[in-house]
Amino acid sequence: MSENSQTTPVLTKKGQETRKKILDAAEHVFGELGYYDASIVLITQHAQVSQGTFYNYFESKKAIYDELIRQLSRELRSTIKEAIMGATTQEENLRLGFLAFFRWIKHHRNMYSIIQQAALVDQELYRWYYAKLAAGYVRSLKNAMNEGAFREMDHETLAYSLMSIGQFIGMRWVYWENEDVPEEVLETAMSMIMKGIAAKP
Amino acid sequence: MSENSQTTPVLTKKGQETRKKILDAAEHVFGELGYYDASIVLITQHAQVSQGTFYNYFESKKAIYDELIRQLSRELRSTIKEAIMGATTQEENLRLGFLAFFRWIKHHRNMYSIIQQAALVDQELYRWYYAKLAAGYVRSLKNAMNEGAFREMDHETLAYSLMSIGQFIGMRWVYWENEDVPEEVLETAMSMIMKGIAAKP
Repeated sequence: MSENSQTTPVLTKKGQETRKKILDAAEHVFGELGYYDASIVLITQHAQVSQGTFYNYFESKKAIYDELIRQLSRELRSTIKEAIMGATTQEENLRLGFLAFFRWIKHHRNMYSIIQQAALVDQELYRWYYAKLAAGYVRSLKNAMNEGAFREMDHETLAYSLMSIGQFIGMRWVYWENEDVPEEVLETAMSMIMKGIAAKP
Repeated sequence: MSENSQTTPVLTKKGQETRKKILDAAEHVFGELGYYDASIVLITQHAQVSQGTFYNYFESKKAIYDELIRQLSRELRSTIKEAIMGATTQEENLRLGFLAFFRWIKHHRNMYSIIQQAALVDQELYRWYYAKLAAGYVRSLKNAMNEGAFREMDHETLAYSLMSIGQFIGMRWVYWENEDVPEEVLETAMSMIMKGIAAKP
């Protein structure tokens, strides 16, 4: 599935705001009720727009679910990308990326259930979400290996490992406890990872 | 939630077989359709038992879902426990544990969607599943640290990290591709982890 399989049409500023309002409502409704119990009626009620308005932006429940996941994925990836831009070492790059992920899911706690539902609703979309996130890690890892900062190891396996650690630590603290990830928790994970992959530990 | 919050009553051998047949059918139906679309009717049809029979063993759809997750969790944990019994080093212990997990999910591929549904159906059960699996890792890690094989690090954070790596690698290869995890993939993860946590890398 390519990033622009559903190109966002050109909208006025007001149109963009309405579209965003509907997507925010969808994030709430899908996150709290799940895909099967969610409905366009509930989404429009939560967004305080008419059903007619909804259909100006999205064709169906499935269409808005797809676009919600793509939108969340894009936002998350650009947030991480921005956060790691200031990193001066590969270690800092990794730490800033995790911190950006934890901060982002704090404001999008329903993300966990929205993504997990895709395992049933749309396997291709489910894989796309993780593959896209992994691709960002692969790029960073390749850079770090080219620089000689990290050992030469299989990029994809490391990418899935780093992504999984972020996901589970975020689940344990942010999603379950609604707390920030304790510094010592992040540092424990960072220590294992850096000793594990740094070229000169 | 304690392990024996729902004690299995004493059943004859035939009764146990029927109960197992219903649970196997539930694994299929919940895994393929998801909790909300699954029904007792579909489970009994798949198990080829009457609805009356179903109610001899389980009180409701929610009750059998709960018991299915508890049962899968117990089976998985005892499979891993058995597999690592023969390990002679801490590294082997870790590798045999991952291999047992990958083998087990190969025969229970619906496990992924069944567990992820719990994020919406029953958060407590969802946490219980991961907390139980993590507890096994914590026990192994404590032993390895006491022996001086692994560095002293926060047990729980490492447990969640190891569990997450197994889960994501299994998802990537077994769940998505229906393939065995390639040896080099497991060895890449093992190399990162062992260098990361061994006392003398």
